[in-house]
Amino acid sequence: MAKKGNEIKKNLEDIGKKIIEDAKRGKVPNISVPARVTNNIVFDPKYLCYVLGDKTVTRSAGNVRHVKPLAQMLKVASFCKGLVGGTKHETKRGLYYISESWGEKLKFDEQQESDNLIEDIEAIIGLPREDIHIIPNPGGSVYGDLTLKFKNPAGKWMKVNCLQTADGQTIGPRMCEAEIENCNAKMIIAIETAGMYNRLMEENAHEKFNAILVNLGGQATRATRRLIKRINEIKNIPVFIFTDGDPWGLHIAMVVMAGSAKSAHVNRMLATPSATWIGVTASDIKKYKLRSDKLKDVDFTRIKELKKDPRYKNDKRLQEELKTWEEIKKKAEQQALLKYGLRYVVDKYLPAKFKELGVKIK
Amino acid sequence: MAKKGNEIKKNLEDIGKKIIEDAKRGKVPNISVPARVTNNIVFDPKYLCYVLGDKTVTRSAGNVRHVKPLAQMLKVASFCKGLVGGTKHETKRGLYYISESWGEKLKFDEQQESDNLIEDIEAIIGLPREDIHIIPNPGGSVYGDLTLKFKNPAGKWMKVNCLQTADGQTIGPRMCEAEIENCNAKMIIAIETAGMYNRLMEENAHEKFNAILVNLGGQATRATRRLIKRINEIKNIPVFIFTDGDPWGLHIAMVVMAGSAKSAHVNRMLATPSATWIGVTASDIKKYKLRSDKLKDVDFTRIKELKKDPRYKNDKRLQEELKTWEEIKKKAEQQALLKYGLRYVVDKYLPAKFKELGVKIK
Repeated sequence: MAKKGNEIKKNLEDIGKKIIEDAKRGKVPNISVPARVTNNIVFDPKYLCYVLGDKTVTRSAGNVRHVKPLAQMLKVASFCKGLVGGTKHETKRGLYYISESWGEKLKFDEQQESDNLIEDIEAIIGLPREDIHIIPNPGGSVYGDLTLKFKNPAGKWMKVNCLQTADGQTIGPRMCEAEIENCNAKMIIAIETAGMYNRLMEENAHEKFNAILVNLGGQATRATRRLIKRINEIKNIPVFIFTDGDPWGLHIAMVVMAGSAKSAHVNRMLATPSATWIGVTASDIKKYKLRSDKLKDVDFTRIKELKKDPRYKNDKRLQEELKTWEEIKKKAEQQALLKYGLRYVVDKYLPAKFKELGVKIK
Repeated sequence: MAKKGNEIKKNLEDIGKKIIEDAKRGKVPNISVPARVTNNIVFDPKYLCYVLGDKTVTRSAGNVRHVKPLAQMLKVASFCKGLVGGTKHETKRGLYYISESWGEKLKFDEQQESDNLIEDIEAIIGLPREDIHIIPNPGGSVYGDLTLKFKNPAGKWMKVNCLQTADGQTIGPRMCEAEIENCNAKMIIAIETAGMYNRLMEENAHEKFNAILVNLGGQATRATRRLIKRINEIKNIPVFIFTDGDPWGLHIAMVVMAGSAKSAHVNRMLATPSATWIGVTASDIKKYKLRSDKLKDVDFTRIKELKKDPRYKNDKRLQEELKTWEEIKKKAEQQALLKYGLRYVVDKYLPAKFKELGVKIK
């Protein structure tokens, strides 16, 4: 699935080549960019996520307001081309500051400008910015029988097994692009809170379910979503997401499954449409008599929004759960299951869930 | 420095023994708890951090309002005693939910109650809750030539070297209490942002300065502060803190150095008073002509607060920097140094800083 360095470099070069060819032919140089605007964000029913439609905007050297951003785009593409294939990465914020060395005419005045340009380039080349070494914040960690191969900062190939760590491997730039050398696990369980991730680790859920455990740390970062997607695709193992029992927890799962509207231009590279939300469901709150809090106005508003969201529309189970929340008017945290003891979530709750969802264990 | 499991168990037991002995002697059972209230938080000029004074409060079984919290304290102490020495840990939130299984009379009605009790126990036994296996959120990560020895969740002793990872080791419960098996590094550099941490890693700062790099990820979690302190004490190597160039960045460094007022009862176990703030200082903003933003009202207010704070009062250098901020009215992010190129921070900025601070490299 992942493109190789040379292919990515060529994608970036092509942006510049188009400009040169236009100029050679006596044409006003221009670049067409997929439009990242609300009325061009459409739901892809096949891939079950938001993607960009066919609309494009044109940046033309003939328009005086476009000249600077056009030149900046070439400069950014050239800078990133220099990073691809190497061991260095920068953040969006770093890129903004680096532009100061490009001189008064090319430097960005606000970070918003360089952030926008990076998203334009993502949309043009159809790849997330991680692939051109503009990295998201690290977030989350992973624990389980998964061996990854990566180049360390000195350029030396190394391997690491994600059981050979104390508290899991941080998911940063090198984990993000690491090659999956070996994976003996048969599923991924992604967990909303660090506390429950630790509980599962300490109750040996990774052995019992032969699973890779991923700590999402709340709303998953792009780095984490991308790693989950890559393992899912390359190793063809299912992904389960275990969150708090409220509409916000459910939506944390949904963003792993279907991406966000904001990242429509790269969702196909980040989303894992086959992933399944385990719970804590609204029904679980009743069934397991969990300690709960009352839903607030803001929760009810969120439920209404989700009911209409195309990502939820054709999913009967999720629609039912949204309705149940409206009926019971309660929410519960995933650690509420601890009332039955430390081992309960691994001994009883998850096995019952896998049975309910028709998943065979091991 | 760290107490052993049996010693900690005894500290917890002693809480219960006191109650039993009182009862045997026909005394109304009571427990004296160091008072965690504003007028008992004092600055320790020797240890350079806030600590608790001599005031105590007494929880007495003779007071009907104290009976329940007194019983709950014994139950929590007993629960934690069961964790100490083993491979399991829980969070404060987890503890709150676990209390549901203790029956109507002992369960906590609000998490605030159990959180408070944990802090009381910390104050009584003089140890941070990590030592009784009530763990903080993981946060930050560490990269460098440091080998740690820990028990994995299955209870097997393992070793991990913090260079044998892609993006650094997550600092969670096992890293927190790991034994320091080997440390070839000669200093710790703790960094505010993940972006700059990655920059230092990719520019081989860990080799050039023979350093352990720690990603604080903003305000450092207790887990991260404790690991820094332990390496500093056990291996006797200096700690440098590299933050954004604003009063908030400086205070991130200060919390590593001197702890917070809120954690006065355990600061001696978390703070690293010998640590040094590198910058970005207010003077650096001028000297390196860094791209900057205007200080806002909220920044000026913060500067005024810090000038009066006892942690800053006798530090001439920090007082000067606070004044300089007031004069230049500007702040800068640490990544602003990237205007001079990716390598500048490691090739020029940090060496100049170490020279200025009189630190020999390697």
